[in-house]
Amino acid sequence: MSGRVTIRDVAALAGVSAGAVSLALNDRPGVSVPTRERIRAAAEELGWVPSQAARSLARLAPGSDTVGLVITRPARQLGLEPFYMEFISGIQSVLEERSATLLLRLVRDREQEIAVHRTWWRTRRVSGAVLTDLTEADPRIPALAALGMPTVAAGHPGLAGGELAAVWTDDAAAIAEAVRYLALLGHRRIARVGGDPHLGHTAIRTRALAAAAEQLGLEPPRSVPTDFSGQAGARATRMLLASAHRPTAIVYDNDIMAVAGISVAAEFGLHVPADLSLIAWDDSQLCRLTHPALSAMSHDVHGYGALVARTLFDVIEHRGTPAGPAPTPVLVPRGSSAPPAR
Amino acid sequence: MSGRVTIRDVAALAGVSAGAVSLALNDRPGVSVPTRERIRAAAEELGWVPSQAARSLARLAPGSDTVGLVITRPARQLGLEPFYMEFISGIQSVLEERSATLLLRLVRDREQEIAVHRTWWRTRRVSGAVLTDLTEADPRIPALAALGMPTVAAGHPGLAGGELAAVWTDDAAAIAEAVRYLALLGHRRIARVGGDPHLGHTAIRTRALAAAAEQLGLEPPRSVPTDFSGQAGARATRMLLASAHRPTAIVYDNDIMAVAGISVAAEFGLHVPADLSLIAWDDSQLCRLTHPALSAMSHDVHGYGALVARTLFDVIEHRGTPAGPAPTPVLVPRGSSAPPAR
Repeated sequence: MSGRVTIRDVAALAGVSAGAVSLALNDRPGVSVPTRERIRAAAEELGWVPSQAARSLARLAPGSDTVGLVITRPARQLGLEPFYMEFISGIQSVLEERSATLLLRLVRDREQEIAVHRTWWRTRRVSGAVLTDLTEADPRIPALAALGMPTVAAGHPGLAGGELAAVWTDDAAAIAEAVRYLALLGHRRIARVGGDPHLGHTAIRTRALAAAAEQLGLEPPRSVPTDFSGQAGARATRMLLASAHRPTAIVYDNDIMAVAGISVAAEFGLHVPADLSLIAWDDSQLCRLTHPALSAMSHDVHGYGALVARTLFDVIEHRGTPAGPAPTPVLVPRGSSAPPAR
Repeated sequence: MSGRVTIRDVAALAGVSAGAVSLALNDRPGVSVPTRERIRAAAEELGWVPSQAARSLARLAPGSDTVGLVITRPARQLGLEPFYMEFISGIQSVLEERSATLLLRLVRDREQEIAVHRTWWRTRRVSGAVLTDLTEADPRIPALAALGMPTVAAGHPGLAGGELAAVWTDDAAAIAEAVRYLALLGHRRIARVGGDPHLGHTAIRTRALAAAAEQLGLEPPRSVPTDFSGQAGARATRMLLASAHRPTAIVYDNDIMAVAGISVAAEFGLHVPADLSLIAWDDSQLCRLTHPALSAMSHDVHGYGALVARTLFDVIEHRGTPAGPAPTPVLVPRGSSAPPAR
């Protein structure tokens, strides 16, 4: 992928003539719509740029303060939980101050995500990018580090590998606080409805939960993975409540699953918090709208997005080494947690 | 704003020399950061384009399948209700099929929104745009129609003025169905927790609610305006329940406010649905997660976003006159509605 990509490279990948590529990319007639789309996709995949002159001119365009965000999740899932919209709204709050713009793209896999970042950067469509949903040994980290594009990884530096600026929340400390609180109330059998096990922060919480429970002499806690949706949270809660060793407290990895947990408890005829304590995560306004209101590990997701965006502008403008932790989520006890019955 | 914008125009607006503009827009040293930002803002406001040659070259860049969305709402509010994220996820589902990108920008007012669209179109950063949150006599409609940019208005054609393609939901028919259903159950005193009264679709619902109630011989219904947040929905519900003429049924303009309504009913010691019936709107997964589950006017917001995006590509590719209604929201009765007590 080094060196200059030519029209011939694009033609070879798209399986057409160089002439067809020229027609398609110049928006001239003579190429069918599907072929034109294939050619454009090939050009994008290769990071093709019209010419050095065009690249220089593109730099002059106003509005070059554009930040790229590529998300590898199904479109449907994006609307399911409040986290992403709050995170994006936090980024936008900083962009708005600078009259800057967000370039937002959904893709199917990591390879496509890397290709999009590469094209955006080479064609100067963005001045920097935000990475989210870090996984262990994330292939995007070395790829984007090699690109030299200003990038901030929203995730633990252990996942960002020291190659990219990172802004993170201390998930391990937060879940340990939740477990200590429940143990102080007298709970001995705690379970968790977790998120996507492939995500780095989910794995961090799973390990920290087990470690905290062991340290406090609690039963080994069970973590059930989900896709973060309310429906999956309901299913996981049913599974936990139907088991022989029913937990007396459940910690959720977001808030919409905890809302679902309240309803499932009612299905089982259990009273919250007398029969079952529930702790939500992220603490969007949802937690204050249920009855009883949900105790939560409160995480200012909007502020987290804003910190990520400010850090990115620090990187773009070469202001020091700006990486650092966002505030650790804090426990906000409300009506859904209490000592266990008996 | 007609004719070509020159560097001199930008310099005049920013209150600097033409030389400073040249330095700033060429990313060369010699201009302070605040001045450079002022110059960029001026260039953007005027829709300045580097040169005819640059404009032509920009057309050649891969990834020109970019759709613009400018939202005039506070960033905080964007994360508050599921509607926008579901709508954007629907748009993204269509963009993803085409490897296309969303250019997303938050602004403070309509004038700024128009300026951003004008710049994006003149600099060929987008091939089309989506307009949302239509108001009566919306100043964006004539401005964008004059621009000649492919645009789809997500709103009633009565608001889009016949100048732009429109995709809408029949809010009047939907709220009339909600009222007929409650009247059939025996309710005579219906209230509504509405949305932002400046928005066109809110006004359409308010008028249709009053007309339907009159036709059915019900008491004149009260509509309380809100900012669509759960907190405002809770406040509006408290106000209605504390009034001398307490309604026996409340219709909400979204679902998060209806979730808040369930909690407020519990605060007042009222049983849903025996003492109070509640109808939510939009019907995201939230409605199935409460206890009792919320009856709702079910609106496929994700599908609505997808239809808007498909319509926009029809306009961009000159395929007929693609405007038309999205499916009308349908009543989905669940556990929160029943005949009134007594």
